[in-house]
Amino acid sequence: MLSLMPTNRQWILSARPQELVTPDVLQLTESAIPALANGQALARVKYLSVDPTMRIWMADIPQYMPPVQLGEVMRSFGLAEVVESRHPDFKKGDKLLGLTGFQEYLLLTGKEGYPFQKLPSIPFLSDVNFLGTLGVNGMTAYFGLLDVGKPQAGETLVVSGAAGATGSIVGQIGKIHGCRVIGIAGSEEKCKWIKDDLGFDVAINYRHADWKRQLASATPNGVDINFENVGGDIMEAVLDRMNLHGRVVLCGLISGYTHQAPSLSSFARILIKRLRVEGFIILDYAPKFMDAGKQLGMWKMTGRIKDRQTIVKGIENAPEAINMLFRGENIGKLVVEL
Amino acid sequence: MLSLMPTNRQWILSARPQELVTPDVLQLTESAIPALANGQALARVKYLSVDPTMRIWMADIPQYMPPVQLGEVMRSFGLAEVVESRHPDFKKGDKLLGLTGFQEYLLLTGKEGYPFQKLPSIPFLSDVNFLGTLGVNGMTAYFGLLDVGKPQAGETLVVSGAAGATGSIVGQIGKIHGCRVIGIAGSEEKCKWIKDDLGFDVAINYRHADWKRQLASATPNGVDINFENVGGDIMEAVLDRMNLHGRVVLCGLISGYTHQAPSLSSFARILIKRLRVEGFIILDYAPKFMDAGKQLGMWKMTGRIKDRQTIVKGIENAPEAINMLFRGENIGKLVVEL
Repeated sequence: MLSLMPTNRQWILSARPQELVTPDVLQLTESAIPALANGQALARVKYLSVDPTMRIWMADIPQYMPPVQLGEVMRSFGLAEVVESRHPDFKKGDKLLGLTGFQEYLLLTGKEGYPFQKLPSIPFLSDVNFLGTLGVNGMTAYFGLLDVGKPQAGETLVVSGAAGATGSIVGQIGKIHGCRVIGIAGSEEKCKWIKDDLGFDVAINYRHADWKRQLASATPNGVDINFENVGGDIMEAVLDRMNLHGRVVLCGLISGYTHQAPSLSSFARILIKRLRVEGFIILDYAPKFMDAGKQLGMWKMTGRIKDRQTIVKGIENAPEAINMLFRGENIGKLVVEL
Repeated sequence: MLSLMPTNRQWILSARPQELVTPDVLQLTESAIPALANGQALARVKYLSVDPTMRIWMADIPQYMPPVQLGEVMRSFGLAEVVESRHPDFKKGDKLLGLTGFQEYLLLTGKEGYPFQKLPSIPFLSDVNFLGTLGVNGMTAYFGLLDVGKPQAGETLVVSGAAGATGSIVGQIGKIHGCRVIGIAGSEEKCKWIKDDLGFDVAINYRHADWKRQLASATPNGVDINFENVGGDIMEAVLDRMNLHGRVVLCGLISGYTHQAPSLSSFARILIKRLRVEGFIILDYAPKFMDAGKQLGMWKMTGRIKDRQTIVKGIENAPEAINMLFRGENIGKLVVEL
């Protein structure tokens, strides 16, 4: 009997990247989807989340999760909808959030190492919101800023990667908490968005030759909190402006993920300015996700937080979407729509 | 009338050092001491404290106190005894601790920017103890480890510069708090002292080719707290061993004070391991010095903390004493006895 099931296209990690994702790194394969065994479910992936951390997962270095092995489907967050189920926990139509991977169909066997979360149906919130503002990025912004950065009203907060999925939320939560918020981003369009639409006090385009001078004049009272998404020269320049006992929320170092960037005197500045620097990875806050999600959802629905997506269409374009991220070509959350 | 007052020899900062303190950097001058005006006192300096931070004070870079200006007496901590007083707060015989500077006599005018502390007379405690164990080094060890490092019994603490004035106290306070303590130092004699006399669990000589392997085997459960006095390669190696949510007390970076040392991937490790890194400068804890001094004095008098001095004699040798510090030639507290 001919199977009526469609085939599944998957991006397989076939080589470790040197810098960006070259064509040899990910291979698109196509295979038949077997009939479901008892206890299994099949979900169709609707959106793939494209995140800087994927570049780390591709590298064979010590990290916070096992690296993706050669021959495995490329790991990614994503949103999938159950199309057929012989699994007691899933029924057709359920929407799932989790590590779907770069593929069209996800076979749920009940033995997943990382659980999938069922999406609630909430008015005014679209599916794609659960990948960004109410997903990993919103959670990262929420806990990183509030738990690690501990913003006080009147303090100055600088956010790098400010037009990205996480940075754009960080700045808005900073405004909600009464901070003066300066965003650093890499284009005029990004700067216009975070200032005019999101309400950042100042937006600085780091591609301008005099951006460091702009940063200095935008921070006459120094910087109390640096929410760091970028690293490298940008972090150095912000560290120069930090106040005594400032807090650096070290959330991401995207500028260094595709190459090694020396940072000569950062530690001396941390020492002299008595900074508190904390590494921060959102997985540690999983038990508190529900509370944060309620708050973020309320802010989103009442318009206190705005977001934006950059949507790439088609699984065939998924590898290039990763490169877009490292070239700074997205505004807001970058997703691949299948 | 011929003055009966002695002359005062002073080391004047005459050039900014490039690396170590070369002969052009400090100039020894000699001048008559004028008769005291009303409200002034004269103190004879007995001990000069030699500390890594002096090399920072010599450099014209942004720092936590103003740099020493060219033409000024070289700043240092020291211990001085009042020999004549027309000042209401000081009487002959008072022993004072504070920023005496590299000179034989200290003129107290009542307008000192940094106050001097009168030494109590305590049995079993010698004057020189107030420069080390009960002075800046003891305070640094006490607050840095307890307030920033927050040691818990059973945790693993690694101390670099472990045979230095601060590091040797840090390790002993770590033992008092039930930690497994690993010290890193630069000679066999230093290692023998911290292990056999001070009770460190393990002492590692970083001049051994396989010291990183020794560090790995000495920390089978990883490292929970790194009390960092050195920076550079040594810090990198300890960061490699840190546990999730470990604490790095960034107290000193002596390996970088005489040159720039790149630290390529430190921030990535802080991020991935969710480390908390805090810059730490003892001045911030001044209001709590009395409490700490009581505790340190008790530990010292009851033998729970041991210390040691490396004493250089004669003010003419004071500049070379600074170089000894950066070449690692001291064990315990380095002081110049006048």
